[in-house]
Amino acid sequence: MAAPSYKFQGWLGLDKNAVEGKMEWQEYEPKTWTEDDVDIKISHCGICGSDLHTLRSGWGQSIYPCCVGHEIAGTAVKVGKNVKHIKVGDRVGVGAQSGSCLDCEECSAGLEQHCTSMVGTYNGKYSDGSKSYGGYADYCRAPAHFAVKIPDELSLAEAAPMLCGGVTVYNPLVHNGAGPDKRVGIVGVGGLGHFGILWAKALGCKEVVAISRTNNKKEDAMKMGATKYIATEDEGWATKNARSLDLIVSTVSSPNMPLQQYFQLLRTQGQFIQVGAPEDKIPAFSAFALIAKGCKMGGSAIGSPADIAAMLKFAVDKKVHPIIQERPLKDANNAIVDMENGKARYRYVLVNEKHASELKA
Amino acid sequence: MAAPSYKFQGWLGLDKNAVEGKMEWQEYEPKTWTEDDVDIKISHCGICGSDLHTLRSGWGQSIYPCCVGHEIAGTAVKVGKNVKHIKVGDRVGVGAQSGSCLDCEECSAGLEQHCTSMVGTYNGKYSDGSKSYGGYADYCRAPAHFAVKIPDELSLAEAAPMLCGGVTVYNPLVHNGAGPDKRVGIVGVGGLGHFGILWAKALGCKEVVAISRTNNKKEDAMKMGATKYIATEDEGWATKNARSLDLIVSTVSSPNMPLQQYFQLLRTQGQFIQVGAPEDKIPAFSAFALIAKGCKMGGSAIGSPADIAAMLKFAVDKKVHPIIQERPLKDANNAIVDMENGKARYRYVLVNEKHASELKA
Repeated sequence: MAAPSYKFQGWLGLDKNAVEGKMEWQEYEPKTWTEDDVDIKISHCGICGSDLHTLRSGWGQSIYPCCVGHEIAGTAVKVGKNVKHIKVGDRVGVGAQSGSCLDCEECSAGLEQHCTSMVGTYNGKYSDGSKSYGGYADYCRAPAHFAVKIPDELSLAEAAPMLCGGVTVYNPLVHNGAGPDKRVGIVGVGGLGHFGILWAKALGCKEVVAISRTNNKKEDAMKMGATKYIATEDEGWATKNARSLDLIVSTVSSPNMPLQQYFQLLRTQGQFIQVGAPEDKIPAFSAFALIAKGCKMGGSAIGSPADIAAMLKFAVDKKVHPIIQERPLKDANNAIVDMENGKARYRYVLVNEKHASELKA
Repeated sequence: MAAPSYKFQGWLGLDKNAVEGKMEWQEYEPKTWTEDDVDIKISHCGICGSDLHTLRSGWGQSIYPCCVGHEIAGTAVKVGKNVKHIKVGDRVGVGAQSGSCLDCEECSAGLEQHCTSMVGTYNGKYSDGSKSYGGYADYCRAPAHFAVKIPDELSLAEAAPMLCGGVTVYNPLVHNGAGPDKRVGIVGVGGLGHFGILWAKALGCKEVVAISRTNNKKEDAMKMGATKYIATEDEGWATKNARSLDLIVSTVSSPNMPLQQYFQLLRTQGQFIQVGAPEDKIPAFSAFALIAKGCKMGGSAIGSPADIAAMLKFAVDKKVHPIIQERPLKDANNAIVDMENGKARYRYVLVNEKHASELKA
């Protein structure tokens, strides 16, 4: 087979200072090609909080050089012979995972994200030893099992941030019964949290309560579909809203969260699901907080390819539109600094302007 | 109506020193009689860890004088006119709860134990202002809604410790799917934990793993039906047994528990349910421990009267026999000191010898 007519180039973090806007545009060696893989010409890539955690080695030492970005949308330009569900020219997306054993109990049960051989879309190693590189780049190569077709009705710019941010919140809502009889709270009105509000509204939840530190995002949250807004800077917020929520999805990743007060918000047998992953331990709490009301605290990690496909279909059916800000890929360094400073409203999407314009042509 | 021919007398804690074996036998004023109540002539009362926590004001200041004991079994000697399910002479039991509003969402859903007006069988206050007194006593008066008939096939001595200790463990097992396809761990081989092993075995769980600090109780645990035993004093116990359990019920109440290592034992989407209530906060842990495997940590509190009735029926059907040691009620002070020192194998049951012998006669 002829060598592809494209190179793998992207923004590489070379050390932990990269998070300060010091990524460098360089060529790199993608994973070794197999006939189970797909090469994607990237037009859009969302900026996820994980990108920052990884660039600064916040979750443990990262493997530099590292090209982050795992909300990758674009066009399949090369498809392995063993791949059935994608053909060259298809609009596809890859989220935060691009590898697993595909054989274990978890993989067989459609829980690939919990496979012990899970490979992240960046900063990971495939079983053959080659490294995974993410989507702040021109092209991406990944095992096609983790590439999902994007429905025609969704723009690639809107689909991109759903691939990690979207499904991270969609999954715990859907798998914990969010729906018309449920009062749902979303902690954090950021990239993930704004998806939480949008999904909870689209799922027809009885209440959709946005919970944020300050009142700054109240207007935005209400526009997204929140029925109520709680600012934790307001005195007595937990007591005033005690026992009001069946399900809370917490998207914040600060270890200083007022966890015990969040539990106060839960109704009997309510559930608190943490999806934001703090770099440090979460605060100690009294077990009584869970025992007295028969509550549960859980964790949830992204979603399987099938979950992502279901979410994309749901987004089309319910006409869910994320609130995104497009940033040129060439200015990725500025974009991550703005992201780190909390300026995103509500999800930055890097656009490879050349590839995106070719798509429109 | 004529005054009853009996007095309410029992072992009263007068201050927090009572836990050192300094309860005093005194008369006290039971709750004000209503036609919804039942008076029980007590023959047996289990000794629960809660009794010690309460005697020493470990869960907050107790209301002295306090008569503890909430695993009460005996005979109904007076039954209110409004009571349909019990008649004089019936063998009945009362667990840790003897009051709730019977009107709220929780009560209507059969979750009386989560009613915000929950009244404990001792150290509580009924809505009319009268105090609740427990079962280290000759007689007990309680709202009949919380008195459960004890099946003829069960001895009162065996039924007594099921009323709190038994149902506290039975409920989280049954309501979290313990059964033939589940690998279940029980942390702590004490009064509660021994019930955990017995129930898990009777439920036909695929694995029943007893988890204790030392190896001292291994032989006992295996006899109770454990298929495996983990001692947390053994090096590498958590790594060696990682990802082996679907459901763990933790009966320990020490705040120093190795929580993060217990989480290591969970399989994907496993659950850890805490029923022992530490007096202090439980240790801080990394949210990753829950997120990576999609696990949950929950709390569970006793059970409703319906849960208790279902458990008693299950105990009869499956011929579950708790391992108890009978102690004379008159020696209650010695018994609680022995209990505090961890000598119970596995549940002490106080016996009012006069009342018990009348039953046999």
